[in-house]
Parts: sequence; structure tokens; C-alpha cells
Amino acid sequence: MKNDNRPIGIFDSGLGGLTVVASLKNLMPSEDIIYLGDTARVPYGDKSPENICRFAVQDAAFLARKGVKMIIVACNTVSSIAMDKLGEKFKDIHIVGVLEAGVRACLAEKASSIAVIGTNATVKSDAYRRNIHAVNPAVKVTSIPCPLFVPIVEEGLVQHPISDAAVELYLSPLKKNPPEILLLACTHYPLLQEALRKYFEGSRLKIVDSATACAKFAEEFIREKGISASEHGNGSERYFVTDMPASFLRQAKRFLGRELDSFEKVSLDTN
Amino acid sequence: MKNDNRPIGIFDSGLGGLTVVASLKNLMPSEDIIYLGDTARVPYGDKSPENICRFAVQDAAFLARKGVKMIIVACNTVSSIAMDKLGEKFKDIHIVGVLEAGVRACLAEKASSIAVIGTNATVKSDAYRRNIHAVNPAVKVTSIPCPLFVPIVEEGLVQHPISDAAVELYLSPLKKNPPEILLLACTHYPLLQEALRKYFEGSRLKIVDSATACAKFAEEFIREKGISASEHGNGSERYFVTDMPASFLRQAKRFLGRELDSFEKVSLDTN
Repeated sequence: MKNDNRPIGIFDSGLGGLTVVASLKNLMPSEDIIYLGDTARVPYGDKSPENICRFAVQDAAFLARKGVKMIIVACNTVSSIAMDKLGEKFKDIHIVGVLEAGVRACLAEKASSIAVIGTNATVKSDAYRRNIHAVNPAVKVTSIPCPLFVPIVEEGLVQHPISDAAVELYLSPLKKNPPEILLLACTHYPLLQEALRKYFEGSRLKIVDSATACAKFAEEFIREKGISASEHGNGSERYFVTDMPASFLRQAKRFLGRELDSFEKVSLDTN
Repeated sequence: MKNDNRPIGIFDSGLGGLTVVASLKNLMPSEDIIYLGDTARVPYGDKSPENICRFAVQDAAFLARKGVKMIIVACNTVSSIAMDKLGEKFKDIHIVGVLEAGVRACLAEKASSIAVIGTNATVKSDAYRRNIHAVNPAVKVTSIPCPLFVPIVEEGLVQHPISDAAVELYLSPLKKNPPEILLLACTHYPLLQEALRKYFEGSRLKIVDSATACAKFAEEFIREKGISASEHGNGSERYFVTDMPASFLRQAKRFLGRELDSFEKVSLDTN
């Protein structure tokens, strides 16, 4: 079996995609990883499709210049809106997105009803529903934007009554007759799993987390393509961000589950 | 008396600065106004001082190219961090900021205690406290970041229990012994005035809104400098934004208090 020791590139609008990195490192510790968080322009979720595509191409171009073997789009907003554009622009690099992974994970459960929760842009794109229905049009798909969840997670309020109030605000339409699957279509949302579980306690609802699904999907993809790194202990990690606000390290720790050892601030080519 | 019929330029990170435009139009209906909202990179409040300065210079340069007679910095984050930088770069244009206006309005009240509430970046800059203490070091100044207030306002949840929960979360340290003045150091916060008033009902606390203060300050400034527009009925309004997400018009109406007649999407020179 041949190996490919080039790094895996991952990008997100901000630091939420570090939840995907954490899962990836568990599954494939030998892979080198290069992460880019566009913290200067985060969040993408309330921006227009046109700008989301423009930002995504700049993010991917940065990783391509670093010589990655594949790019994981850890941002649900980007993977709902800009995958075709990225495919056109970067023909020679494998690109996988958190959306495709989330959709596959849901379909594997053979559920008849799925609720997709995400940012305004992700839900408005309707991409999760379209991709689910492309495979199985019989599944009932409900999509609900939950725009306060991201700031609540970023403020570390996941165990505060305010997160329960926000869950109630957005998800009360599902309470009476919960779907079989609740798909967390945003990398921030796994941190709210406890509040979500509590809200639907006693129902058969199962939570599918697109970040974990994405890491699993990337692992399968790499295995199938035969481009795994050779087993050489722990792979390297490099973290790049476009801005380092005061809360940066605290946020990174929240999503990665441990301290960032090192990171570099970069400017993207924004022409 | 001479007149200056060039337009007034106003910019903000997003659409919150439209609250300043609404006040300005009430006070000086004859003035032409050019507004720029950097909606592609909003919010600024969680970004680094370095990037906030860079963005602010790009925003001001755009207005300068439009031939404005003065620039009003309607963004509290920018006016807490980037005023020196803007002064250096745009020596020939009058620049006034919402911070200076807010500080003056507070000091005019002769209060002995002031609580300043704003974004993370505004509070971290400590600029309101420094500017208040530069004039009167005896005033007790408390500064509290309230990062959830912006998304709550943008979601239109100002009369939802979630806004009461957020007010409680951030302002409970003030409840027992409220300050004489609560300074709203963010253009979004005036929309939360009702929840804030309710929370401090029965106390002598007075709310000072930096957006209204900014419009009054700009009016005085223009009068003093003798650069008012000639009285010719309603001045023109032009609105520029760097992105037009789906929620754009709804948000604009929320802050301006009426529909936007027209607007143009522009790219800033981001080199």
C-alpha cells in the first residue's frame, strides 16, 4: 500500500472546526494537519452566498499553497454553499465537506424524519434537505436556523439557563413530535449537546453531530483513496488564523479540548 | 454664514450605525448623508485591535473618496480603538466618534457613578473609562462586556424572555447598587432599552444612549465649525454595504426605523 505523507488541510470560518480536528486526531493520529480559521471575517453564517464563496476560495487557496493532499471543509455554511465553486477552482485536490458527511451519517441511520439545525445561511441554502432528498425523498426533513447558538457557545454559556431558553426558543416546534434524528449542522453545536439531550429527554430522538461524522468520513475517504500517512506516531499540527482577538486561546481550547501549542497569524490573499 | 453642502459620511461595522443616521436626520434634515456598513466583516467587536484599525482605515478611505466634509465613526468598537490611527491617516477631514460623544453626554450629567456596557473589544480597550477619567477622575466607572446583546437585537428578540435573561446575566452585579448612569456604548443596545429600564425599575439609574449622543454631538460640531448644509429641505441619503445577506433589509429597518429606499453593494480597497 502506498502512502501519502502530505498534510490534511482543514478550514473553517473560525475556530469551531477545531471540533473536527479533535475527532480527526483521535481517528488518524499519524496524519499531519494544517488548520486555517478565518477569524478576521468570522462568522460566515449571516453573510451572502457570493461573499461566502469568495472567502471559501481564499481559504482553500491558502491550504493548497501549503501542499495539502486534501481539504476538509469544516464549515457547514461553506459546505452548504460553496462546494461546487471549490470543486471548479481546485480540480487537483480532494475536497470533502462536513455537509456530505452529515448527510451520509443521517442516511445510514435509516431514519424517516430528520431535523437539521444550523446557521441562517446553512438553513437558507436548503443544501442538507436537498442532499438528503437526492438519496431518499421519503425522509421528512425539517430545517431550523438557530442563530443564537453560536454566540452562546462562544460565550461559554452552554450550562447556563440562557442556553435552555435558546433551545426552547428554536426547538419547541419539535417538542411534541420529535424527529428520529437531530442533525447538528454547525461545528459549534456539539458543545450544546447536553442541553439538547435534556430538552428531548424521554423521546427516541438521536443526535448526529456533523463534526464527528466529518472526521469519520474523512478517514474512510483517505483509506479508500489509499492516501494515508505512514504510521509514524503523532503527526504534526499547524494552526493558522487570520486574526487573534483577546478570546482566541480560550475559544480554541473550548473546541479542541486542549490548549493550542502554537499558531500563526496570516493574511489571506484577498484580491 | 458660509455653508458646506458636501455630505456627512458615517460608517459602522454593520447596520447598527443606522440608529445614528435616524437621529441625525431628525436633528439636521438638510444634510446629505453617505452611510457605509462593512457587513462583509461584521462584527468588529470580537476582533483584534490591529484588524479593527485596518478595517476602520479602509472604511474611512471609502467615505473620503466620496468627498465627505466629515466622518462620523458610529461604531463604538472603532471609536474606542482606532481614532488616533484615523486622525493620522485622514488629516484633512473632520472625524468625530461615538465614544467622544458618549463620554461628553455622561459628563454633562455630573454623575458620580457610570456603568459602561459594550462589546468585548470596546470594554477591553478601556477607552470609555480612560476618557471619562481624563476629565473627571473622581467618577466611579464600571465597564461590563455584554456580547450576547448584539445577536439578540439582530434576531429581533428584544421583547423575548431571552433578552431579560441576558440582561440579568450581565447586569446583576449592578442590581443592588445601580450606578447613576448606564451608558449604552454600542449602537445595537438602544433597542434593548425597554428590557434595561424594566430591570432597573425603581432605581435612579439613567440610560445614556451613545447613538443619540453622537448625533447631537455631530450637530454641535457642524454648527461650531460653520459647515452646515444650506437649508434646502430633505438632504439625500446614500447607503453602501459590503455584503447583502438575506436578513439585510429586515435588519436595516430595525435600526433606521423605516425601510431603506435604496442601497449599493461595494467592495472596499482591502490592500
